[in-house]
Amino acid sequence: MPKKTPLISALLALGLSAAIAAPAKKPAAPAKPKKTSAELIAAAPDGDWRALDPGNTLLMELPAGPVLIELAPRFAPRHVANIRALARGGFWDGLAVLRVQDNFVAQWGDPDGDDAAKARPLGKAEAKIPAEFSVPLKGLPLTRLPDVDGWAPRSGFVDGFPVAADPKTGRAWLAHCYGMVGAGRGNEVDSSTGAELYAVIGHAPRGLDLNITVVGRVIKGIELLSSLPRGGSNMGFYDKPEQRLAIKQIRLLADMPEAERPALQILRTDSATWTQLLDARRHRGGWFVHSPAHTEICSAGVPSRPVPGSAAKPQ
Amino acid sequence: MPKKTPLISALLALGLSAAIAAPAKKPAAPAKPKKTSAELIAAAPDGDWRALDPGNTLLMELPAGPVLIELAPRFAPRHVANIRALARGGFWDGLAVLRVQDNFVAQWGDPDGDDAAKARPLGKAEAKIPAEFSVPLKGLPLTRLPDVDGWAPRSGFVDGFPVAADPKTGRAWLAHCYGMVGAGRGNEVDSSTGAELYAVIGHAPRGLDLNITVVGRVIKGIELLSSLPRGGSNMGFYDKPEQRLAIKQIRLLADMPEAERPALQILRTDSATWTQLLDARRHRGGWFVHSPAHTEICSAGVPSRPVPGSAAKPQ
Repeated sequence: MPKKTPLISALLALGLSAAIAAPAKKPAAPAKPKKTSAELIAAAPDGDWRALDPGNTLLMELPAGPVLIELAPRFAPRHVANIRALARGGFWDGLAVLRVQDNFVAQWGDPDGDDAAKARPLGKAEAKIPAEFSVPLKGLPLTRLPDVDGWAPRSGFVDGFPVAADPKTGRAWLAHCYGMVGAGRGNEVDSSTGAELYAVIGHAPRGLDLNITVVGRVIKGIELLSSLPRGGSNMGFYDKPEQRLAIKQIRLLADMPEAERPALQILRTDSATWTQLLDARRHRGGWFVHSPAHTEICSAGVPSRPVPGSAAKPQ
Repeated sequence: MPKKTPLISALLALGLSAAIAAPAKKPAAPAKPKKTSAELIAAAPDGDWRALDPGNTLLMELPAGPVLIELAPRFAPRHVANIRALARGGFWDGLAVLRVQDNFVAQWGDPDGDDAAKARPLGKAEAKIPAEFSVPLKGLPLTRLPDVDGWAPRSGFVDGFPVAADPKTGRAWLAHCYGMVGAGRGNEVDSSTGAELYAVIGHAPRGLDLNITVVGRVIKGIELLSSLPRGGSNMGFYDKPEQRLAIKQIRLLADMPEAERPALQILRTDSATWTQLLDARRHRGGWFVHSPAHTEICSAGVPSRPVPGSAAKPQ
């Protein structure tokens, strides 16, 4: 028998001929064919893209390749300053991914951090910084999502990051979506330094929101963390040292020769193209026969592209 | 410096001393310490657990170990009947995992399904069955969740499966949460047979709901699929045959000698313990300093345990 055409990717099969209308969910009159996500991205004007900020982007070199992480100084300035200092001091070079818990997080840092005699010194980073769980909502350039988010009264995007907010408390915070990076802490809320980091590799654990400092987002290479073998029954920590994955190094792009930096651009989440992409997720076409008339901050990844005209850089 | 105590597992750090009250979000009077999830599970009476149904449970043997899948005959009777027939005929034995797309799905079936000359015959399974995207809501024993679900007006659990529903249309459907298993289809809605299956291995792609037939849920071993190397740029399909992961066999438990069947029990989602576990996720304690006063159908995995008194079965 003919093999079934494979399940079409949610990323690739958007809005081809969507004629399904918004929340009323009545059959709509045939609309003009909408652009697919790929078409929207291809048609995005240059002004809808932004460069990576070398002072706020980390390159983590794993044996299988690079992981790029954008930092969020607007949300966690003290942690980001510490992370910059740690990267400049080579803190993570030769350390390891210590923990991979399925449908939750991959976590890296100093395996000997608990042992004062063996722990690697933080160098110029500060040993004690405040928790940075949220920031004032007022003045934040939030591109709001109209869709209901069960976890927070308001949600949207800032600087490419998924953000939730509560007008009643006047606070906003980075949301624990797939690929977000946070700073592990102990029982004290101000016990994170940024030296131990984790990336979300499963369904968004939004229950962690407002409980831990989120410092950034993996913009390339998350699959190198999400496909690692899972650790043991102790919250995914590897039982044996030899199971850990060595980190070659973590550097700030600003500390690398310009020619060696990845030549990537990120779609601006305050752009018209981003708004159109979100709409294409709400109102599907092509393979889809039903549209959810809904999306959420953790449901869509922010696109990136090579810098136009750049030679492909080895990464 | 002392290593930070690792980020505490969302699975293990629930509700220790939660004193944070429900949606009003006012500081509540100190309440008596609540039980943790582990304590709730340990205290669950035997009646809150159910046995696996051998006629509706698949054992998929991968090189790294077994994956157990509970089928959902209430939601997809024709597909489940086909899947039983395919398993009995040894259809998947020696076939392969063909596709692993990061933050989306792992998919398995016949690599030669497109080639009529090479495709493996379906045996006693039917080549054409109807789409089974939803069922009548009326009469469905839905354990409702009070929490808002942005993707559907109503949500909850049936037979251990996450379910969404719309009273206006009178329909209910299995939701694409982490670990759910669906039947790949082509452009025609009735082009799935159950021969090509996928499991969700990322943030719930709820946009697929009502677009494809969902047939069950991985209840054990999802990490053997979610940690596989990701495929190429063509929607995660492996570019080379040698990248594919061979499936040793897929059998129905009913077709295995009783002594070889995994001796597992699943917590009933219509039990008091399950209600308490969901509540422990809404109102956190211990390590948590903020409670979301919210949960969702894709946020909590249904616990399993060895059958009390059973010898540990090799699995």
